[in-house]
Amino acid sequence: MVALESPSRLSTLHCSACGAAYSAFELQRVSACCNVPLVADYDLFEPLGRDIIDRADPSMWRYGALLPLLNPDHKVTLGEGFTPLLRLPRLAARHELSSLLLKDEGQNPTGSFKARGLSMAVSKAKELGVDGCIIPTAGNAGVAMAAYCARAGLKAVVVMPRHTPQAFKEECYWYGAEVELVDGLISDCGARVRQRNADGALLDISTLKEPYRLEGKKTMGYEIAEQLNWSLPDVLLYPAGGGTGLIGIWKAFQEMKALGWLAPETRLPRMVAVQAKNCCPLLETYAGRQANCHAYHGSPTLANGLAVPHPLGEAMMLRVLRESNGTVVSISEEDMLAGMRDLGQQEGLFVAPEGAAVWMAARKLLGTGWLHPDETVLLLNTGNGQKYMDNVAGRAFN
Amino acid sequence: MVALESPSRLSTLHCSACGAAYSAFELQRVSACCNVPLVADYDLFEPLGRDIIDRADPSMWRYGALLPLLNPDHKVTLGEGFTPLLRLPRLAARHELSSLLLKDEGQNPTGSFKARGLSMAVSKAKELGVDGCIIPTAGNAGVAMAAYCARAGLKAVVVMPRHTPQAFKEECYWYGAEVELVDGLISDCGARVRQRNADGALLDISTLKEPYRLEGKKTMGYEIAEQLNWSLPDVLLYPAGGGTGLIGIWKAFQEMKALGWLAPETRLPRMVAVQAKNCCPLLETYAGRQANCHAYHGSPTLANGLAVPHPLGEAMMLRVLRESNGTVVSISEEDMLAGMRDLGQQEGLFVAPEGAAVWMAARKLLGTGWLHPDETVLLLNTGNGQKYMDNVAGRAFN
Ligand SMILES: Cc1ncc(COP(=O)(O)O)c(C=O)c1O
Ligand SMILES: Cc1ncc(COP(=O)(O)O)c(C=O)c1O
Ligand SMILES: [Zn+2]
Ligand SMILES: [Zn+2]
Repeated sequence: MVALESPSRLSTLHCSACGAAYSAFELQRVSACCNVPLVADYDLFEPLGRDIIDRADPSMWRYGALLPLLNPDHKVTLGEGFTPLLRLPRLAARHELSSLLLKDEGQNPTGSFKARGLSMAVSKAKELGVDGCIIPTAGNAGVAMAAYCARAGLKAVVVMPRHTPQAFKEECYWYGAEVELVDGLISDCGARVRQRNADGALLDISTLKEPYRLEGKKTMGYEIAEQLNWSLPDVLLYPAGGGTGLIGIWKAFQEMKALGWLAPETRLPRMVAVQAKNCCPLLETYAGRQANCHAYHGSPTLANGLAVPHPLGEAMMLRVLRESNGTVVSISEEDMLAGMRDLGQQEGLFVAPEGAAVWMAARKLLGTGWLHPDETVLLLNTGNGQKYMDNVAGRAFN
Repeated sequence: MVALESPSRLSTLHCSACGAAYSAFELQRVSACCNVPLVADYDLFEPLGRDIIDRADPSMWRYGALLPLLNPDHKVTLGEGFTPLLRLPRLAARHELSSLLLKDEGQNPTGSFKARGLSMAVSKAKELGVDGCIIPTAGNAGVAMAAYCARAGLKAVVVMPRHTPQAFKEECYWYGAEVELVDGLISDCGARVRQRNADGALLDISTLKEPYRLEGKKTMGYEIAEQLNWSLPDVLLYPAGGGTGLIGIWKAFQEMKALGWLAPETRLPRMVAVQAKNCCPLLETYAGRQANCHAYHGSPTLANGLAVPHPLGEAMMLRVLRESNGTVVSISEEDMLAGMRDLGQQEGLFVAPEGAAVWMAARKLLGTGWLHPDETVLLLNTGNGQKYMDNVAGRAFN
């Protein structure tokens, strides 16, 4: 398969640990050399101006040249991306913040930012001739995979924790997916996926085990820059589970820097990874209380997407925090509910607990002085609250 | 209040029955002359080209000149509108349709097309200096009103049938709204609203009792034309309860015709109103089995938004059907579930029962020959399925 006449500038894949090159034109999983995620590279050195953006396309696909899909006929889309970047004037005033922004990923198809990664991964699965896909999930990614596989006519197997709210399971059923429930967290689901798919009949699209979900997620970074007229916020807060969003957005910033797309003098944001107190492996490693997350023990949280005890991309996330002068914050269950009330009552946004955690992290960092009230702060709300009803019903007032 | 320096071309309001003029610059309800809805007019005769569209704004507000908000500072927005227009290739192939399109309004803030009307009505409420709003609702409109009132800092009172799925009520609570439950359908809620708001302290934004929700809804019509490059489908199917969408889209088509925005030779679509067999007042009047809907008795349906036994806009809807050579179709509860399975399993869309009804109506009209397989068919999916979980859980497979 050759990319010759393709709109995509995809050139190669590289090992995220040692940099070894891999072909971008055949099915790949993690790197054979170091057993870590592979990352896609593009030919960015030939002039490629912002005019390659297809401004008539109000979806993440407007950045097609910088995405890995070679043949646009393989695109599996439900209109994902190019979500609103909203000002939060009432909360900003209450906390004397000069500029508080929220990117509302809850308006994506299937109600979360996972639509981006799965639209991309399933499109590439179709391009690479796969029959079906399998995924371990905390909920949203599984729903998105089920939807895009239905759209593509591919078989879908979704493996999720038994305690996941019913709405996530039900939505998968409506897409005709097979759902398997596992006692435990997403890492236990991952083990079940490996066992069940030992013959490799299905494409395993676990976080960072294939290189393309990350490319879908990175589009959030391109959109933020475009929506801010090619400047960037001072601080960006993101709810990190597996971490593809954090890593993807940072990758987009690096690519735009290399392309010369950012306004002169633009400084890259300090990136904040927000975790749940109930499951914060990244915080523990960052704080030096463990060498890495391998032996971390987490428990469930209202923010199902944050219950990821052993993220495969831990080293990549830590690198982003280091390079950006960022930090990690963890949020309690009660504080997530308080954040949902703030965003609901003050700004008319019914967000996922993950998004609420991000707002509460901003409040916490304002309190410690790490964040200054005159900095531009961007919150990533990764999903809408609807599918979390089992977790939060009856808690709207305290 | 003068519109002199406003981007809006709003000029006046008129009575939808006798045409009498009313001021567009003060608070109005239904017409004093005929006690029917008022409709907004714009100054469309001075040249106004498609270049007034703000193409950098991927929301319904891109058509600001043709919307009634005078001062953009009063805009209360969550990024509503400019939703994806998707092709449905798999269902089209199965039914040998040459062109099947779906506009996915489920991707709006609060998960339905009601976001458009309520963003507009609440913006105007703010502009007109109101303290709070009250609404009788089948569910989605109430959720949207609660969200936009929270965003605007206005008080919100939502009155809905007690049997409405819990998710609609819960989401209102998270926005800090007061929710009152009534035994009966939306018409009974309307009576309760009149009683409760007898002193007029709150703005009553019942369907068509104020003229601006309609203006929000009409943006769907503008978007359809813009997304189809200023042509229009042959047939457009819409799930009609109160009917603002049907009336609003048709109004947009008329405005665009007057403005000369449509491509030459463009014919306006035949408009199809889709109702639930359990509550189809429009069908009964259309078929001549009753003079009008006043004495119609409807019962609840899975498609909560279609349980509107006495639509105030009945005459306006019938006019649209007549002028467009359209028709009315009613759909059974079982068929709505079948439609949800079709759209979920074949196209990756988890739609509200209202949207599913629209697809089943297309199948029905294909069956009777009213619809030809070589016509371009556009389905309006007005909401996503999530909040209907209480109605549909366990029914994904038959
Ligand atoms: C709403 C939500 N936010 C955040 C996350 C974490 O995303 P990631 O695993 O890419 O860090 C998830 C993952 O399931 C999620 O569903
Ligand atoms: C999803 C959905 N579709 C359709 C309708 C009917 O809309 P209208 O009353 O504007 O005809 C409603 C109204 O509640 C709704 O919620
Ligand atoms: Zn390596
Ligand atoms: Zn009159």
